[in-house]
Amino acid sequence: MNVHNSLEMQNRITSLFKIEYPIIQGGMVWASGWRLASAVSNAGGLGIIGAGSMYPEVLREHILKCQEATSKPFGVNVPMLYPELNEIMKIIIEMGVKIVFTSAGNPKTWTSYLKEKGLTVVHVVSSLKFALKAQEAGVDAIVAEGFEAGGHNGRDETTTLVLIPAVKEQLKIPLIAAGGIGSGRTMLAAMVLGAEGVQVGSRFVASNEASSHQLFKQEVVNAKEGETQLTLKELAPVRLLKNKFYNDVQTAYANGASVEQLKELLGRARAKKGMFHGDLEEGELEIGQVAALIHDIKPAAQIVSDFMAEFKEAKLAVAKL
Amino acid sequence: MNVHNSLEMQNRITSLFKIEYPIIQGGMVWASGWRLASAVSNAGGLGIIGAGSMYPEVLREHILKCQEATSKPFGVNVPMLYPELNEIMKIIIEMGVKIVFTSAGNPKTWTSYLKEKGLTVVHVVSSLKFALKAQEAGVDAIVAEGFEAGGHNGRDETTTLVLIPAVKEQLKIPLIAAGGIGSGRTMLAAMVLGAEGVQVGSRFVASNEASSHQLFKQEVVNAKEGETQLTLKELAPVRLLKNKFYNDVQTAYANGASVEQLKELLGRARAKKGMFHGDLEEGELEIGQVAALIHDIKPAAQIVSDFMAEFKEAKLAVAKL
Repeated sequence: MNVHNSLEMQNRITSLFKIEYPIIQGGMVWASGWRLASAVSNAGGLGIIGAGSMYPEVLREHILKCQEATSKPFGVNVPMLYPELNEIMKIIIEMGVKIVFTSAGNPKTWTSYLKEKGLTVVHVVSSLKFALKAQEAGVDAIVAEGFEAGGHNGRDETTTLVLIPAVKEQLKIPLIAAGGIGSGRTMLAAMVLGAEGVQVGSRFVASNEASSHQLFKQEVVNAKEGETQLTLKELAPVRLLKNKFYNDVQTAYANGASVEQLKELLGRARAKKGMFHGDLEEGELEIGQVAALIHDIKPAAQIVSDFMAEFKEAKLAVAKL
Repeated sequence: MNVHNSLEMQNRITSLFKIEYPIIQGGMVWASGWRLASAVSNAGGLGIIGAGSMYPEVLREHILKCQEATSKPFGVNVPMLYPELNEIMKIIIEMGVKIVFTSAGNPKTWTSYLKEKGLTVVHVVSSLKFALKAQEAGVDAIVAEGFEAGGHNGRDETTTLVLIPAVKEQLKIPLIAAGGIGSGRTMLAAMVLGAEGVQVGSRFVASNEASSHQLFKQEVVNAKEGETQLTLKELAPVRLLKNKFYNDVQTAYANGASVEQLKELLGRARAKKGMFHGDLEEGELEIGQVAALIHDIKPAAQIVSDFMAEFKEAKLAVAKL
């Protein structure tokens, strides 16, 4: 039973997506397929299918299954560096997806096309400058993601605590905070800073419905404060768990590796090897700093309801300050 | 006139220091002498003299002048890498200072001695592990400082948004949040995360009473999001404004500079040159990411009262969420 009054959380983000709670599950490679996305949407948040690790036909299948599994709104996240971008966008439109989150690229390239087709478009940024560019490109909302976030990350290294108020000062469209948010308490902190919603990644990796390998999920639960690091900045900065592969990268740096040598070391499919196949030594294990605060694997719906319970509790605590 | 009821903010931090508001002005090299510390203490916060950039006899003079300028509690921050540490501690005790913040070293070395002499001891850390070590060493409170903070910084790069809840989960003694806090709104966010007080550095650099050079203060006001970076990690990680000196360091890295070459490039008194003498090109300009959110230079007392007004406003906004 849902003990929260759905009206209490209405704001521009819940209205934009027609969702109950302003909790957006981040699109994540090798984690967020239709099972996770539909579970989050059914629980009143916004589920997102992460297209970044899917061939076009795989994405088509995930969208179809998600549509069968939920009647609630859900979205697709598209990293714009994707090689088959045209094909991905075509499928999204053909299948009647209503919400697209774009990341890792220029928001001007696709926003007006998607908007003309009637989609809601959100762009993910890691700086104020790109937040304003995305607003100018006509997106409906922004996700501003701080340095603490897992996976690919910005070069300016601005943290969520600074980035959200800095973007909020100048942005007119709704702002979603990401990076470091794994509880309803942190969600409230993000809203105090000016966000109207939160995008949550790492916490949903440690969910029953994430397609991540069980060994990786357990490693996220095991991770302690200080056990992730942003690295490979010469290629594309990425936050990883400090495992054998990470140590190999550090050794390469210590030996003065060139960009070419780093690329060769990274090779292909490192992320799949780690996060999907569960190779904790040789795989790339992308996760946020907030892994330090994740202590269990649980159903996505429970993550959403725990967020709202913690949020409510934190609100009551604020009233007593 | 103070419009805030002093009783509304009583918690373990205000009790520990016998202050009105749980706002601690961080001890900063070339910024926080007796003028700033006494102004903050007189305004109801806790002013801190930063011993890190003072010869022992200079520190003695600052303590004396601070005692003359305020009857309220104030403290001294001592980086424990200081070469004349014994002399510094001797002066602190002789002069009857009641509060010491230690940083950059092992809290075991001095805590029991200082506690025996009746002082309140706080240790600054950048990780959960060291927070627990400091608690075990018997300190009265912890400052946990995130990656976004200016100046010297931890190796694990954990941000304030993650560090505060991670420390709070396990710490029993009171917790002060630092890094990225430049407004009452962010102060409330830090308290939502579990802090009972905040240590504020950068915001107080841009105050009338900071001993920093006027040109540096103005540069802090000018700084935009993304214009600081943590660098020189091989020596001691330090967050700087990206000026000519920073660019020279990056060029040295690109040329494969050794630790010795980096040390030589850094040389001596770079920080003094930048922050105290106002050489914006050749000096080391230590400031936090929150500089992006600092838009004016104002009296320290106004910073404190603005914090409390913003805090109150943010509290009211939370009640409406």
